[in-house]
Amino acid sequence: MRVDLNADIGESFGAYTIGDDAALLRSVTSASVAAGFHAGDPSVLRRTIRLAKAHGVQIGAHPGFPDLAGFGRRAMHVTTAEAEDFVLYQIAAVAGIARVEGVALQHVKPHGALYNLAAKDDQLAAAIAHAVQLFDASLLLFGPPASALQRAAAAARLRFVPEGFADRAYAPDGSLAPRGDAGAVIDDERRIVPRAVGMIVERQCRATDGTVLNLAVETLCVHGDTPCAGRLAAAVRAGLEAAGVRVAHPGS
Amino acid sequence: MRVDLNADIGESFGAYTIGDDAALLRSVTSASVAAGFHAGDPSVLRRTIRLAKAHGVQIGAHPGFPDLAGFGRRAMHVTTAEAEDFVLYQIAAVAGIARVEGVALQHVKPHGALYNLAAKDDQLAAAIAHAVQLFDASLLLFGPPASALQRAAAAARLRFVPEGFADRAYAPDGSLAPRGDAGAVIDDERRIVPRAVGMIVERQCRATDGTVLNLAVETLCVHGDTPCAGRLAAAVRAGLEAAGVRVAHPGS
Amino acid sequence: MRVDLNADIGESFGAYTIGDDAALLRSVTSASVAAGFHAGDPSVLRRTIRLAKAHGVQIGAHPGFPDLAGFGRRAMHVTTAEAEDFVLYQIAAVAGIARVEGVALQHVKPHGALYNLAAKDDQLAAAIAHAVQLFDASLLLFGPPASALQRAAAAARLRFVPEGFADRAYAPDGSLAPRGDAGAVIDDERRIVPRAVGMIVERQCRATDGTVLNLAVETLCVHGDTPCAGRLAAAVRAGLEAAGVRVAHPGS
Amino acid sequence: MRVDLNADIGESFGAYTIGDDAALLRSVTSASVAAGFHAGDPSVLRRTIRLAKAHGVQIGAHPGFPDLAGFGRRAMHVTTAEAEDFVLYQIAAVAGIARVEGVALQHVKPHGALYNLAAKDDQLAAAIAHAVQLFDASLLLFGPPASALQRAAAAARLRFVPEGFADRAYAPDGSLAPRGDAGAVIDDERRIVPRAVGMIVERQCRATDGTVLNLAVETLCVHGDTPCAGRLAAAVRAGLEAAGVRVAHPGS
Repeated sequence: MRVDLNADIGESFGAYTIGDDAALLRSVTSASVAAGFHAGDPSVLRRTIRLAKAHGVQIGAHPGFPDLAGFGRRAMHVTTAEAEDFVLYQIAAVAGIARVEGVALQHVKPHGALYNLAAKDDQLAAAIAHAVQLFDASLLLFGPPASALQRAAAAARLRFVPEGFADRAYAPDGSLAPRGDAGAVIDDERRIVPRAVGMIVERQCRATDGTVLNLAVETLCVHGDTPCAGRLAAAVRAGLEAAGVRVAHPGS
Repeated sequence: MRVDLNADIGESFGAYTIGDDAALLRSVTSASVAAGFHAGDPSVLRRTIRLAKAHGVQIGAHPGFPDLAGFGRRAMHVTTAEAEDFVLYQIAAVAGIARVEGVALQHVKPHGALYNLAAKDDQLAAAIAHAVQLFDASLLLFGPPASALQRAAAAARLRFVPEGFADRAYAPDGSLAPRGDAGAVIDDERRIVPRAVGMIVERQCRATDGTVLNLAVETLCVHGDTPCAGRLAAAVRAGLEAAGVRVAHPGS
Repeated sequence: MRVDLNADIGESFGAYTIGDDAALLRSVTSASVAAGFHAGDPSVLRRTIRLAKAHGVQIGAHPGFPDLAGFGRRAMHVTTAEAEDFVLYQIAAVAGIARVEGVALQHVKPHGALYNLAAKDDQLAAAIAHAVQLFDASLLLFGPPASALQRAAAAARLRFVPEGFADRAYAPDGSLAPRGDAGAVIDDERRIVPRAVGMIVERQCRATDGTVLNLAVETLCVHGDTPCAGRLAAAVRAGLEAAGVRVAHPGS
Repeated sequence: MRVDLNADIGESFGAYTIGDDAALLRSVTSASVAAGFHAGDPSVLRRTIRLAKAHGVQIGAHPGFPDLAGFGRRAMHVTTAEAEDFVLYQIAAVAGIARVEGVALQHVKPHGALYNLAAKDDQLAAAIAHAVQLFDASLLLFGPPASALQRAAAAARLRFVPEGFADRAYAPDGSLAPRGDAGAVIDDERRIVPRAVGMIVERQCRATDGTVLNLAVETLCVHGDTPCAGRLAAAVRAGLEAAGVRVAHPGS
């Protein structure tokens, strides 16, 4: 049994700080770095890549909607051509700065509302997969299991890495409960760690109505925008390892 | 005698259009493409690169201050670290999309206030040259002759291409007259064409006070944000060729 | 018979120009001014208000989604609280600058995707109407006839001014055909003028499938983002007056 | 002896939080609220005004440069017309939302680089004072003592409230030491409280070189963007009151 542990990092912007990236990077094996559209800026991006490199963590691009005010969490009705173009732009920016810092990009993971829409919208998913394929067909694409994004990755012959969220509630259909719903975000470490372990060891998770969902995930996301995200990531990693799970990035 | 003819393109943004890029591309040999900070957006950027490629025009990145509202023409007091980071980011975005479109980047040319400040500020110039060098030391750097940017390019072992402006007035010290000054922008084709020819054939130009300036320029910029920019570019090219000047990109 | 003729103005931004506001203002009786979120900036806003005042045209605030890159034409999934707040902010900015210029605000008209969503979404419509009511309950609210926005205006005891578009195709249900559809935007003056006259004199309009729609509109919008918008507005006004319609702002 | 105690608040943006406004508002008597250009957004603005009102704290507008990425701390070379327009816009937005919340605006205080430039640049200072005067000539203008802004306020017949900073080092000429300099920001409560008391009781402060500066300040600023800003504000207030100073807003 093995799993990748990932976090979204580089989400600070100018004078604004979000997340304790240094703490997260001590526990995760992959990190998705914001590109300046929904979060991040050129200096944060470069600093974050250096930090991830110093921790030996694999780096991905984390493209989002062009909506800093909404942190990329508001759905926007863009055309698929627009989506392909701004995903391509964001991958190019992250990959270019990573290369300058001596790091090769491992993956791409859409952010927030773009991620959620691409889980269900085949055209948007195809646009994202196409942008990844055009830029570098060897990049991994992270996304929800059994989603439109997974189908689009297959069609584009990209390696897809299905992702689970130990700190988010699942609806009975296997989608994430909307962030605004009560109970959608789980912040109790005592619940998150066993959920993470169950997702990998038993390949199962309970939905909001108690339904048992079968999940085939190869990476688990630990959210970074909570005060004790670093400690939580460490606890999840320790819990997984104690259960005999090897925590390693997907390419290892 | 030979010279490169360049234009700044890709400056439209969303529903906003500036410049007749298609017309300009019929006459120039190099084009500097905006990267979305002072002008341009991901879709405009990609479309513009395709258009330049179709016209066989060499492409450069045109990084500017992060100031869409001011079109990058307002000086901003950024740190040199910030400047290096946002120039690097913009080069990475343009180069990455160019690569996807099957085009290699030829050069980098700073835009507007960043260009004017880098002409005189050694630290800012060094930050820009360093960003270029880090990204790809074979990229050409376009800038004003005998400037801080030229010195910084030499220190970074970059090939520098000194640039002249046939449609801008020069102060007696060889700097461009500020855009806001009366007469700073020349829009009479009958004056621009002979100025362009004089800059290359005689390697001279008259400053605002009549002083004769000796200029060693290897590229001439034709501005694109005027209604008849396309016709003007054609006239400048025709005038140069009629005077026996070969118009070709710097690497040819 | 009478009708108000309105246009959306003040949509330029920094170095970017959209629309020939001066030409439009010669023919319309009301003008909705962008507030800097989807278009416009503080200087454009102030200059536009002065221009409208000089032409004796009534002014309204034209709030839109915070999406300059999409010109406010992309639907965004904001909360109703967010919508109320950013509509309130935009009204405050326009009204404040208008007051300084010696002009009282006449109306509020949502822009683009906000307008289209508020036509059908009761909660969003209520948020917009509430913002107007909170700011100044004597402001008129412009919107589509028989819409959620009209109902929300009634609930908030605001005077509602139903609006027709002579240059846009209507779906059989009375909504505007989406801008991206073929034929959705009518640019032939010879078709627009009789449609405008028919909307006011016969209170009818043909939908895309030929259905006759009964429309009770009190203002007609002339779009300004076309090259000959000024001439078109003049033609529509002349056509209406020739048919015996009095063209005047709603409060006259 | 009396003094106003002020803080800059409402500087959060979307998902990004800066400052513990609720803690600050327990101790200050005036608060300057960001307007969305260098910090803040419409929802933060409205929420912040409500919070200040609930604490009985007087409200001012805190206009800054249009530079969210730089938090308004980077000097920008704007024209005086641009400055007047964007200051006017920001005052209008804050005042309009305050009015809806049942609060009248007390003052205007420029932010960051705009404040520092207006301390020395007579034309910029005049533009700011003119915007305030145009909007409401009864508004107070906060700024550095013996500055260009004070002179501009006098010329515009505005009541000026000279401001001191107990947590910032002063250069020998009475200007604030640049934020980037070592020691420019004082974060030791044991030094800040006696400095605050000295500024009001003795009307003096020591500059970085030991020079004794005579300061005639009527309001003291407590910065809010430090983790323990709320505790610091409470300590400053307690220190002032223990020294017999009455802490009250300027209009009381």
